[in-house]
Amino acid sequence: MLLKNIISASRLILFREKRNTVSFSSYKNNWGYKKIKEYKPLYVSKIMAELDPKIAEILAPLRVSVKEQGDIVRNLKSSGAPELDIKKAVAELKNRKRILEEKELELAPADSGFERAKMEDLIKRRFFFDNSFAIYGGITGQFDFGPMGCSIKNNIINLWRNHFVLNEQMLEVDCTVLTPEPVLKASGHVERFADLMVKDLANGDCFRLDHLIKAHLEKLITDKKISDAEREECKDIIVKLDGFSKDEMNSILRKFNIKSPVTGNDVSDAIEFNLMFSTSIGPSGNVKGFLRPETAQGIFVNFKRLLEFNQRKIPFAVAQVGNAFRNEISPRSGLIRVREFTMAEIEHFVDPTDKSHSKFESVSNLDINLYTACNQMDGKSSEKMKLKDAVEQKIIANETLGYFIGRIYLFMVKVGVNPERLRFRQHMGNEMAHYATDCWDAECLTSYGWVECVGCADRSCFDLSQHAKATNVKLVAEKDLAEPRMVQFIEIVPNKGLIGKKFKADAQKILAKLASLDESQIKECEASLNEKDQFDLELEGNNVVITKELVSLKKYEKKMHVEEFVPGVIEPSFGIGRIMHTVFEHNFKIREGDDQRTYFALPAIVSPIKCSILPLSNNASFKPIVARISELLIENNLAYKVDDSSGSIGKRYARTDEISIPFAITIDFETEKDNSVTLRERDSMEQIRLKIDEVPVLIRNLCQNKSTWKEVKEKYISSEQTK
Amino acid sequence: MLLKNIISASRLILFREKRNTVSFSSYKNNWGYKKIKEYKPLYVSKIMAELDPKIAEILAPLRVSVKEQGDIVRNLKSSGAPELDIKKAVAELKNRKRILEEKELELAPADSGFERAKMEDLIKRRFFFDNSFAIYGGITGQFDFGPMGCSIKNNIINLWRNHFVLNEQMLEVDCTVLTPEPVLKASGHVERFADLMVKDLANGDCFRLDHLIKAHLEKLITDKKISDAEREECKDIIVKLDGFSKDEMNSILRKFNIKSPVTGNDVSDAIEFNLMFSTSIGPSGNVKGFLRPETAQGIFVNFKRLLEFNQRKIPFAVAQVGNAFRNEISPRSGLIRVREFTMAEIEHFVDPTDKSHSKFESVSNLDINLYTACNQMDGKSSEKMKLKDAVEQKIIANETLGYFIGRIYLFMVKVGVNPERLRFRQHMGNEMAHYATDCWDAECLTSYGWVECVGCADRSCFDLSQHAKATNVKLVAEKDLAEPRMVQFIEIVPNKGLIGKKFKADAQKILAKLASLDESQIKECEASLNEKDQFDLELEGNNVVITKELVSLKKYEKKMHVEEFVPGVIEPSFGIGRIMHTVFEHNFKIREGDDQRTYFALPAIVSPIKCSILPLSNNASFKPIVARISELLIENNLAYKVDDSSGSIGKRYARTDEISIPFAITIDFETEKDNSVTLRERDSMEQIRLKIDEVPVLIRNLCQNKSTWKEVKEKYISSEQTK
Repeated sequence: MLLKNIISASRLILFREKRNTVSFSSYKNNWGYKKIKEYKPLYVSKIMAELDPKIAEILAPLRVSVKEQGDIVRNLKSSGAPELDIKKAVAELKNRKRILEEKELELAPADSGFERAKMEDLIKRRFFFDNSFAIYGGITGQFDFGPMGCSIKNNIINLWRNHFVLNEQMLEVDCTVLTPEPVLKASGHVERFADLMVKDLANGDCFRLDHLIKAHLEKLITDKKISDAEREECKDIIVKLDGFSKDEMNSILRKFNIKSPVTGNDVSDAIEFNLMFSTSIGPSGNVKGFLRPETAQGIFVNFKRLLEFNQRKIPFAVAQVGNAFRNEISPRSGLIRVREFTMAEIEHFVDPTDKSHSKFESVSNLDINLYTACNQMDGKSSEKMKLKDAVEQKIIANETLGYFIGRIYLFMVKVGVNPERLRFRQHMGNEMAHYATDCWDAECLTSYGWVECVGCADRSCFDLSQHAKATNVKLVAEKDLAEPRMVQFIEIVPNKGLIGKKFKADAQKILAKLASLDESQIKECEASLNEKDQFDLELEGNNVVITKELVSLKKYEKKMHVEEFVPGVIEPSFGIGRIMHTVFEHNFKIREGDDQRTYFALPAIVSPIKCSILPLSNNASFKPIVARISELLIENNLAYKVDDSSGSIGKRYARTDEISIPFAITIDFETEKDNSVTLRERDSMEQIRLKIDEVPVLIRNLCQNKSTWKEVKEKYISSEQTK
Repeated sequence: MLLKNIISASRLILFREKRNTVSFSSYKNNWGYKKIKEYKPLYVSKIMAELDPKIAEILAPLRVSVKEQGDIVRNLKSSGAPELDIKKAVAELKNRKRILEEKELELAPADSGFERAKMEDLIKRRFFFDNSFAIYGGITGQFDFGPMGCSIKNNIINLWRNHFVLNEQMLEVDCTVLTPEPVLKASGHVERFADLMVKDLANGDCFRLDHLIKAHLEKLITDKKISDAEREECKDIIVKLDGFSKDEMNSILRKFNIKSPVTGNDVSDAIEFNLMFSTSIGPSGNVKGFLRPETAQGIFVNFKRLLEFNQRKIPFAVAQVGNAFRNEISPRSGLIRVREFTMAEIEHFVDPTDKSHSKFESVSNLDINLYTACNQMDGKSSEKMKLKDAVEQKIIANETLGYFIGRIYLFMVKVGVNPERLRFRQHMGNEMAHYATDCWDAECLTSYGWVECVGCADRSCFDLSQHAKATNVKLVAEKDLAEPRMVQFIEIVPNKGLIGKKFKADAQKILAKLASLDESQIKECEASLNEKDQFDLELEGNNVVITKELVSLKKYEKKMHVEEFVPGVIEPSFGIGRIMHTVFEHNFKIREGDDQRTYFALPAIVSPIKCSILPLSNNASFKPIVARISELLIENNLAYKVDDSSGSIGKRYARTDEISIPFAITIDFETEKDNSVTLRERDSMEQIRLKIDEVPVLIRNLCQNKSTWKEVKEKYISSEQTK
């Protein structure tokens, strides 16, 4: 899941940092876009602004400044400096990165083709999605998808299933949302999936503490009455904020006497607010449960059954699409930060000593924008690179990770993400959980800045180990050993006759219990037998004394051809809502010369309705033709919409463009004579003439990317010329 | 939703009755199957046991007894008898119906082909689904779907979308699960969606109160020590149990000194336990929310936007597929009574004065098992009837309801429900909510008895009216009047200049507020102006005095061509888990002569994997052939599974049969020579020989019901003969 690499057993700080990264698009990030996002929905048409030498000149000193600090961090790390020093240096590095990136976006030429307000108007007006329960006043952070949004979402999910599950022979599962507490304790969510907040003591308003402090200090810095020393102190705190503990945050809160920015009232001390929704399962009220904050845990807890289903072969991947819930303190930015959202997650289980991938070849030549940790440290931008080279040069840690980056890239482009506004950003060492070996986020450039839409992490063996520890259930796979190995075994052999006589009704239970003892328990029994000729067996809360005549110990050596291991996990994790937001932005268009004619140029495969049927007029003789075309389209599983309203054809085209219908079938008086109709393509507005019976298969092929409009046009126009 | 018709504004009792009906399959119903379900997983191969004259003879007196009581109820109703008398008579009627149906099932010939334990073993062993969080000890009422279950579920949902949404041009929406309290107050769920329970005072165990009383009294009745009078009293209470209030239940509890059946401890008084999971939304803890207990409310609250999207035309239908949550006191019976489940619901909005359906014709000749309210009262069985006749004779209330019954029937048969074990049962008058006009449940006969899988209710205008009342938002549609009508209007016309001068900065707000006043508010202003030459305007909590020179009133008459109305709703509501359970049962098979070879003969369109690829041996030369076939199958979006393990072909067929793979492609040494493979069909085990390139399209057509195995076989066998 997007946030899972935050859950680290020993480094709470990582969690907070990662939270911020995820949230960055909306209001904060490690090298921030606040101004751009909040006040200037500015679009850049090129990621690398320095193609313009003037811009490059302005950015150069900022790049140097980042690189200097990057080098300091590197040196501190390699010389084994104290952790606190490294932390401070990293905070300063992030600060410099933020300044650089803000400048980059500021200087990039604005894309005049995008106006967020217009897009949002279209989304609301045609009910792609809107706030849930609006007639009840609405509720923040929850959205209902209307017919168009729902269909786009389904299409993206189906494409995802085809692209990943079907193509990779993954095992898809569907697990429950309600999750009992022990599961999320083991995963680390109960203890660590929290943000610090404070409450307005008078009215109960809640504020995320780091946001509150930062906003307060930023305001203070601009105050002319404070001294230079005070100003420096404020700057220093902002830089280090991410690394502060709850106590440190509290003392800053009090030192600067920070109040509610809304009411001016006093605020409470910092409260750790767990972001999971809690409830209780069953009527007794004793079973605490949460709504899952990610879908991944459902996969891990079913690992044993899934391995079994896969005939115990490894590697294999498991996928899940489903809803997850996070009780955000301040949801915003439309679909990007919400309380209820759909995720699509993959857990690819591998032998940790062999992360090669048999299909890596198929993506190795893709040229992808990679924003490496190294480039981030050096103040450089992202660079296009072949996956093959990135894996060979160990920039991407292994083939499997590289393979998934390639597959994610292909998927994103297929659903309509602009590849020029897509980059894969590597986590810097200090962003990753301690157990993760490498992590890349697919980030999309939107009017909210770079938004993390997909995470792709090598999580090593963390999750399975945690659940195994919590449940005492072995979660391991087996592999063939290169060389067979001799292994010592010890077994307890019960004297069934004696045990039966002595324990009568309980004998069966005792035999079962003896058979369930593991190696270390048997060794304890052995020690006890050696010492006092008996041992205690715990049975349903009571101790039963087993004396030496009741059992014997059998020791033997066995040649082992296989060994057990805990599989590693590579986890691509998709936020469907964030991908949808990106796809909307990247495909929002305004017709040249008409400001009011806005539409979405979605790929046909994603478009909710594949074609419209537009009878030229209300003429009764068109009705049976509409019915016949409808039937043909249904037979071909093509969603369509009949618009037989009285508007002009132009108006009706505009209305169907708005909801992104890629093809329009127009019925006119010729149709009655020769069964021909006009087919119009949305983006080019070009038209061809063809027979009704040819339409459905042609549209189906276009919608499944089996042919292109260019090909179709050439074929039909040339055939017309031939006539 | 399945349970919505229970939520009645004024008749709490209906709610409880309906709950029982829904729960019936698992442990209780109005005319119960407890014995059969719990202890005798017996299958009947014919619904109408009386085809056998001996059986008919045994059942005859029971039928008479039901009819007698049915007539009594009819007479009481028509003579306007007191409600309590009717209630008692209905309770007795239900009791007699229960005895009759139990006997019917008991006498029906057992279907030796079905053994539930064997089916459950297969489901668990191949991980179709299993208890969630099993390694943590599991949790009742929640199930995780493994790869096969998940895929079957997705296939059923996709089929549902094709069959209903695409075919009917429905608008599909996707609304949130988290629902704020006011919405569910308006729908009636907060107040009424509850069961009575008691708690073991020592250990907190919970029991559904009606189950507890019934079990206690049933045991008492068999006790030889009690008197005949006492025995009669117990019987009488059991019969009337459904109609008792909380207080009455409490006094029975105390009178019979009922204890926990598990521990013998004392139990608490009756507690009303609301079945919704509650949580709080947002960090303040002040916004109470629930997990939706059905998906339908999301549709109703979005009605305005949806009507707008449909260009204000009516009728239209809205669909939604999603999860709902009910905190059952005692979940059981596998997928049938669970805490988290997937529903697919349709709300078809109609003009309440015209419930005809333009496509009724297309289903009117279907011959469907209808179990009418009348037959239930008369002690008769269900009868096959053409939908046309049922609607004409007013047995089914209107065409739209009849149309959906037909479409539901077609859908159920398509996904694999045995039509001989499917009936539509009409609710008897006293089962329906007071606002519902007609309601039919699609019930499937399973080893748990008749299980309600789909509800199909005409809910009149209840839901929209409730939300309109709660929010003050008009939820209406418009229709053309047969005759135009003159209507009076009144408007406030502000003197903008004067208002601007007088109120300066506030003027805009005042103008906006004046423009927002509705007719009744304007009339109040008018009265006040008449009386004291001014009126008070409430603006952001303050009163502003508007004197007569600031406004004038304009009255006029307008000829209206349309009128507003609250649409009625026809609601088909599908429980996907219950349908899955039925499909599993109806398609579970054991190979003749081999008790161990169990499999599911699912329709290919529902099967999770469409074909297997089985290379005859481990020969390396088969590898590229496997790869080539795989590629062809992916291109055709066909899920497949390669089984190149070392088992014999027979063993591998058995393994792929278990997970219901309908077709197997076997590669042998001939394949290398002439590109031909063997294609084997699962149910008949017949095989044909054909070229590799022909395989994918052939399988696709078979899986999409575009051709049948019989046709394929004839074609290939005859072409072989021709050679």
